[in-house]
Amino acid sequence: MKDIQTDGIPTFDDVIAAHERIKPHIHRTPVLTSTYFNDLTGAELFFKCENFQKAGAFKVRGASNAVFGLSDEKAKLGVATHSSGNHALSLSYAAGRRGIPCTVVMPRTAPEAKKAAVRGYGGKIVECEPSTSSREAIFAEVVAETGAEFVHPYNDPRVIAGQATCSRELMEQVDDLETVIAPIGGGGMVSGTCLTLSTVAPHVDIIAAEPEQADDAYRSFKAGHIIADDAPVTIADGLKVPLKELTWHFVSNYVSDILTASEDEIVDAMKLTWQRMKIVMEPSCAVPLATILKNKYKFAGKRVGVIVTGGNVDMDTLPWLTA
Amino acid sequence: MKDIQTDGIPTFDDVIAAHERIKPHIHRTPVLTSTYFNDLTGAELFFKCENFQKAGAFKVRGASNAVFGLSDEKAKLGVATHSSGNHALSLSYAAGRRGIPCTVVMPRTAPEAKKAAVRGYGGKIVECEPSTSSREAIFAEVVAETGAEFVHPYNDPRVIAGQATCSRELMEQVDDLETVIAPIGGGGMVSGTCLTLSTVAPHVDIIAAEPEQADDAYRSFKAGHIIADDAPVTIADGLKVPLKELTWHFVSNYVSDILTASEDEIVDAMKLTWQRMKIVMEPSCAVPLATILKNKYKFAGKRVGVIVTGGNVDMDTLPWLTA
Repeated sequence: MKDIQTDGIPTFDDVIAAHERIKPHIHRTPVLTSTYFNDLTGAELFFKCENFQKAGAFKVRGASNAVFGLSDEKAKLGVATHSSGNHALSLSYAAGRRGIPCTVVMPRTAPEAKKAAVRGYGGKIVECEPSTSSREAIFAEVVAETGAEFVHPYNDPRVIAGQATCSRELMEQVDDLETVIAPIGGGGMVSGTCLTLSTVAPHVDIIAAEPEQADDAYRSFKAGHIIADDAPVTIADGLKVPLKELTWHFVSNYVSDILTASEDEIVDAMKLTWQRMKIVMEPSCAVPLATILKNKYKFAGKRVGVIVTGGNVDMDTLPWLTA
Repeated sequence: MKDIQTDGIPTFDDVIAAHERIKPHIHRTPVLTSTYFNDLTGAELFFKCENFQKAGAFKVRGASNAVFGLSDEKAKLGVATHSSGNHALSLSYAAGRRGIPCTVVMPRTAPEAKKAAVRGYGGKIVECEPSTSSREAIFAEVVAETGAEFVHPYNDPRVIAGQATCSRELMEQVDDLETVIAPIGGGGMVSGTCLTLSTVAPHVDIIAAEPEQADDAYRSFKAGHIIADDAPVTIADGLKVPLKELTWHFVSNYVSDILTASEDEIVDAMKLTWQRMKIVMEPSCAVPLATILKNKYKFAGKRVGVIVTGGNVDMDTLPWLTA
């Protein structure tokens, strides 16, 4: 297996090595189809169900690649990150599998359910104030004290190579895809998709889907440089973070379009999936379907891969039941 | 293919013929596993996911067998049933596939969502008052007027043979099962399971799971004869109906035990499945898992097939969110 690359743009060789490295720790998730959604959209949709992934989201691919790519010596010191979302869960899961410490810096205001889930996977939480300055200061302390390896949620070649294994599986599972669509926040999944498809299927259109209310990637794409929002407000809480240099490289070079959806469209698509496909999608991962339903003409008649990124939802606060 | 049997106890030859007959109209549903639930129960659970079935429930197997087993002459007159649940949806779906009329007698008080779903599949609804006498009178009128073939939700050999195809698939999909558990209402699914397993795997334990608040099958099983409740109240609305002579035949001869769960236990199991497996189960189909969680000692160390019967849920009135 190729040594893990910790710096610069990852290559498809890194993806192959990542896949071999993480296979014992992840699911090869199924691809589902839905006659209902095919009829509704006029497209043939193939849903790659990372909501069934370990820790409930695709993020476990990148996190596992980073954790299992560490030398024994480095691994002993553990890993650390700042995240209150699926990356925190996933890194805790992967570290737990390797039996090494994982520290997550999380705002003290983060939902208790999220904190409990991280602890459930064996992660240690260090709380910060809900501000960037506090987070950075506390995180620096954690790293200085522990010597832990920082695994960024997306701007890390190990993480991007790990996420890229998802579309590699999808291309093995479904023939003749013409388009692949995935949600975009920081751009880790989209970058991984670009990395795989630009090598194994360069003719496939890659489309990113984003909430209107957190459309920094859309505006970056149009402007030709990264535009970072300060504090976007959207139900799709996995998609609030901005692009960074590694993900911008992939997005600017390989994405053919970025489509956006309103909050109501996202919630409607989410609810409709639960009702008709009988699967639990989190809000972030309903965004691609919301944009397909809004732009049917772009997808009709095509074979479209849809990355269903995760299914971690607080069942007590469902968005269509809260005002 | 064997001619369809419309009277008496169906045999495994009827199941083979049913399977051939309905294959173009149903999904071979997947079997899912969950590390979380295996760890929690100490058993190895294999979930046969009929929530992913056409029309959202296993009932489409029996309904399709009845509909596609009709002679062309009989089929022209259509089919009819009384049901406000998944059988109504399923019969409408199957009749729509064959292009014949389907009339469903339903209480005028049934939820609008259910009525809309039946109409969405092409079924015609005739409303009755919410009483047995009104239902029977109106249903007799419908049959007299249309000449439609009555397809009972469960006390019909065609329906039982159709439901039996579910456990036939399960036995092909999973090796070495020791126990199979399914919810029991009228007993159609359990009877089908008995019919298949008593032929292809007679050593497998068959357990039925029932709500404590609608435990007529449990009491019948203990008493040795059918006890029918008048109007049980349970969240598991698919399981309120009593056993009838055909299903009692299978239950009394082949079921090894009937376990019950309280309303809270059912809701907890349902919610936990959504949270951890990321699939949508309806209350009725969470009952087996609820009884497994309550009787772990009975299942620990065993390979257990769990029939997940359906996923038709009103997303606006989730039971853990209503008082």
